[in-house]
Amino acid sequence: MKVGFIGLGAMGQGMAKNLLAAGHELSIYNRTKEKAEALGAAGARVAETPAEAARGAEAVFSMLAEDSAVEKVVFAENGLLAGLARGAVHISSSTISVALSERLVAAHAAAGQGYVAAPVFGRPEAAAAKQLWVVAAGPRAEVDRVRPLLEAIGRGLRVVGEEPTAANVVKLAGNFVIASSIEAFGEAYAFARKQGVSPPDLQAVLMELFGGSAVLARYVELIASEAYEPAGFKVELGLKDMRLVLAAADASTTPMPLASLLRDNYLAATAQGRGDLDWSALGLFAAERAGLRGRR
Amino acid sequence: MKVGFIGLGAMGQGMAKNLLAAGHELSIYNRTKEKAEALGAAGARVAETPAEAARGAEAVFSMLAEDSAVEKVVFAENGLLAGLARGAVHISSSTISVALSERLVAAHAAAGQGYVAAPVFGRPEAAAAKQLWVVAAGPRAEVDRVRPLLEAIGRGLRVVGEEPTAANVVKLAGNFVIASSIEAFGEAYAFARKQGVSPPDLQAVLMELFGGSAVLARYVELIASEAYEPAGFKVELGLKDMRLVLAAADASTTPMPLASLLRDNYLAATAQGRGDLDWSALGLFAAERAGLRGRR
Amino acid sequence: MKVGFIGLGAMGQGMAKNLLAAGHELSIYNRTKEKAEALGAAGARVAETPAEAARGAEAVFSMLAEDSAVEKVVFAENGLLAGLARGAVHISSSTISVALSERLVAAHAAAGQGYVAAPVFGRPEAAAAKQLWVVAAGPRAEVDRVRPLLEAIGRGLRVVGEEPTAANVVKLAGNFVIASSIEAFGEAYAFARKQGVSPPDLQAVLMELFGGSAVLARYVELIASEAYEPAGFKVELGLKDMRLVLAAADASTTPMPLASLLRDNYLAATAQGRGDLDWSALGLFAAERAGLRGRR
Amino acid sequence: MKVGFIGLGAMGQGMAKNLLAAGHELSIYNRTKEKAEALGAAGARVAETPAEAARGAEAVFSMLAEDSAVEKVVFAENGLLAGLARGAVHISSSTISVALSERLVAAHAAAGQGYVAAPVFGRPEAAAAKQLWVVAAGPRAEVDRVRPLLEAIGRGLRVVGEEPTAANVVKLAGNFVIASSIEAFGEAYAFARKQGVSPPDLQAVLMELFGGSAVLARYVELIASEAYEPAGFKVELGLKDMRLVLAAADASTTPMPLASLLRDNYLAATAQGRGDLDWSALGLFAAERAGLRGRR
Repeated sequence: MKVGFIGLGAMGQGMAKNLLAAGHELSIYNRTKEKAEALGAAGARVAETPAEAARGAEAVFSMLAEDSAVEKVVFAENGLLAGLARGAVHISSSTISVALSERLVAAHAAAGQGYVAAPVFGRPEAAAAKQLWVVAAGPRAEVDRVRPLLEAIGRGLRVVGEEPTAANVVKLAGNFVIASSIEAFGEAYAFARKQGVSPPDLQAVLMELFGGSAVLARYVELIASEAYEPAGFKVELGLKDMRLVLAAADASTTPMPLASLLRDNYLAATAQGRGDLDWSALGLFAAERAGLRGRR
Repeated sequence: MKVGFIGLGAMGQGMAKNLLAAGHELSIYNRTKEKAEALGAAGARVAETPAEAARGAEAVFSMLAEDSAVEKVVFAENGLLAGLARGAVHISSSTISVALSERLVAAHAAAGQGYVAAPVFGRPEAAAAKQLWVVAAGPRAEVDRVRPLLEAIGRGLRVVGEEPTAANVVKLAGNFVIASSIEAFGEAYAFARKQGVSPPDLQAVLMELFGGSAVLARYVELIASEAYEPAGFKVELGLKDMRLVLAAADASTTPMPLASLLRDNYLAATAQGRGDLDWSALGLFAAERAGLRGRR
Repeated sequence: MKVGFIGLGAMGQGMAKNLLAAGHELSIYNRTKEKAEALGAAGARVAETPAEAARGAEAVFSMLAEDSAVEKVVFAENGLLAGLARGAVHISSSTISVALSERLVAAHAAAGQGYVAAPVFGRPEAAAAKQLWVVAAGPRAEVDRVRPLLEAIGRGLRVVGEEPTAANVVKLAGNFVIASSIEAFGEAYAFARKQGVSPPDLQAVLMELFGGSAVLARYVELIASEAYEPAGFKVELGLKDMRLVLAAADASTTPMPLASLLRDNYLAATAQGRGDLDWSALGLFAAERAGLRGRR
Repeated sequence: MKVGFIGLGAMGQGMAKNLLAAGHELSIYNRTKEKAEALGAAGARVAETPAEAARGAEAVFSMLAEDSAVEKVVFAENGLLAGLARGAVHISSSTISVALSERLVAAHAAAGQGYVAAPVFGRPEAAAAKQLWVVAAGPRAEVDRVRPLLEAIGRGLRVVGEEPTAANVVKLAGNFVIASSIEAFGEAYAFARKQGVSPPDLQAVLMELFGGSAVLARYVELIASEAYEPAGFKVELGLKDMRLVLAAADASTTPMPLASLLRDNYLAATAQGRGDLDWSALGLFAAERAGLRGRR
């Protein structure tokens, strides 16, 4: 298939590479063009604008850091909306607000274009290794059309309905549960340490209980080893996601006290200049609240 | 080995049965004697008092519902402390307070007896099926002596140091993380439902992320199906455990805001006469806060 | 002075009446015209549009329920912005977001118009009785020009700087502290009642400690008497204000865990269809969480 | 009257002095005898034990820092219980747990002695100036008998029933509301400062709204001026009180999320070695969470 890909950050690189590897014809765009070079050398066509990346494509992925970047890429003069053909599909893989996803539904519908929300679970290493887990939603026909693409970027795909926003909701819910687990692990380690129990002893038991989940195993280990730098996923991105969760919760009149607690912790860390730590640093903050000093 | 077993509730039944099955000679005690009958018929000797169950045993398990029951069984006139021989070992498998465990350390030391804390993870079905996971702590020689017993009741054993209380700390930390996960799942389902995403759709994704952990898989499913009755582990036991967590945290000057949130939720449910629901009913409370009506 | 007044709800009625009483020439506008009739009969000129109310005025008050109403009144085709003369001043008394106030600063500056933020503390009875307390901010010259108007609507005026948004910040901070006190009173009454202490006994002591503040005295009494209907200020307005507080806090990277707690409580009440109760119903919710039944 | 007084800390000194000034015959006891010297010189008899201070007295005050001190003074071999005559009354003015107060009810009843709980509101300066506010509870006859004493130490007295513990409940409820207000003021100042509003500007408005309450006026000012040292009432005493509130709330199955939040904040401060700051330092912690640096 002829495919466009917009956004070649750490995640996008791996995803685009796997699309190429699966034999698709790729037209790519990134704001800072240098990041497109490696893929260009590997056979992708490097476009000058999002519109150009979209032109002639049957489907175009966008994989960007936040709402404002997606808004710019889609709605700008030479944006995706302008370049995408009628009947072609925008696959939005960014973790964005439910509100923006609703706006994209309307805009693409008005332009006679398709729109599938397909956010992904996994870190950059997983993207590179085709180990992402994809959650998609959109009109059945559109999802079916782009299914080979969604299967080319990960190890699994789950379709959660015909309303695209459902995929955004599920993605946010998943990230919320992960952050909650991090907070729980963090408080648990602080609790144990203050009572003279060594992190490895608690870690062994937490691994037994929760380590069967690869995503949780990672955080059980990260917090035990206090490896908060360099960040795989930053505190400020955790803050962004909790903001998106709470915004969608608020819009649907859903109180989420645990999400509020997480947001406030990430907000404090950001206010204190620690937004660059890994989001598992909730474990560090729990330790510090208890008067423990970390390794750092 | 000659082994005593005190406390034949849902958990204790399974554990004692497996000790018998492993070929140990069992002397059992339960406050309401009827619960001892089945095991008596299977070959265990039924004692009239904890002291009698302890007499002549090399090791005695206690598996009771709460601190006050353990205090009665150990410190009463015909209690475990009175009946246990010098050099014999009390294996305390109940989920009790760190403070009581400290008191048991001192009392048994003063009596020249051994004391190993060995709380377990798992529900009654797991106890019956020899699938518990045992966390033990105590002086190495004592742990080694009772190791065959600890291995006879579960599928795994982790020794977390020579201070018996370490095992109690780790057990409480584990239960705290499980309860935290339940709250997170509950808020996530409420969040999804209020936005029109069906529980099965979210469930599929949560299973993918967390279902590798059997303990979490159970709660992902329980909350999706709103199966809060009959309880496997009651709200009031969840409340008890969060109280134990917070008491130990307070004694060691460790703030645990997430544990406070869980305790307050369980406390509210108990105040409202819902202490008999399964502790996963945090999912029900999250839904109700959001104005959703459950199946019930 | 020639003065426009837009928004004749419960608060605006009293404020406009007092401006008339102070001898000012009034031109008024309200979306539903009936509410303007009484004041029209009392000598105010009734305008058809916000622009018309503004035309020829030296200053125009707006007193509306929320951001969206203010946006409509100001930015619409026949809006305030279009009708206000260069050099005339918009006095914004609504409780609005800091973000909208910033937008108004820019819009009026661009139009060569003045802008003073002047939110007020007090309920409708206080507005009618000229007992409001006014917090104003804006360029000194503009504040000085409208000072007689600000003094005509209340019993006191405090100027908090030359940046108009400062007044919005202070207003939100004040409402946040009031709501916090309501929650504290509510939990305190539940605590006392569950231990057999009658509300009047606690009330007497709370009045001694806090009753010197008229605003707090009111809530000490409302919660003791469980008089949550009819509402003086609704739960849904409390929710609106906590949202504004948290939005401004978030924009300035300020964690406010107590504001999060209040927001979540108001959000739950709204989700449960209780948004029409008085915002002091935090006392009812605290009682219900404790399993107490109210009078209702 | 012949009166005993046990506990001559900062509060007790002032109370005892005022009892002397009112013409009562005083027998005093303090663990460190030096603190009794000034009152001894002023005419009080200095006793060697609590029992001796109680002997011959019609009523004996105790004013101590915490439960454990009260337990020692009352139940020790030469304690108050041993020395107090049948029919004489123990007036307990310490801020103690509801549970200990219940135990005192039973112990004094068993000994044929009277017991009135009479905790006080006010700081040491108020105690010295006879400006305390006394909350008392106990059997009517006993309260009536000691009423002149209760009136001699403060500016006001409120009797809240015949169950002594009611006074302890009300005292704890009052301190909880004060601490809640401190947290609210602290978050409000942080909110304002982060948005460029100066503390004095917010202070002026908070004083207008809440300054009519002398106790709140004090904290509005303390936090604005960041005067957290020296402490009038320490963080660790605030922690103690929130623990007592939550213990009584837990025993009566009353969730108090705001009390949990306060306890966790005080606990963190204590864990971090800041237990000696004034309990209004909640304002400092709110500022620090927001990344603000205090004066200190």
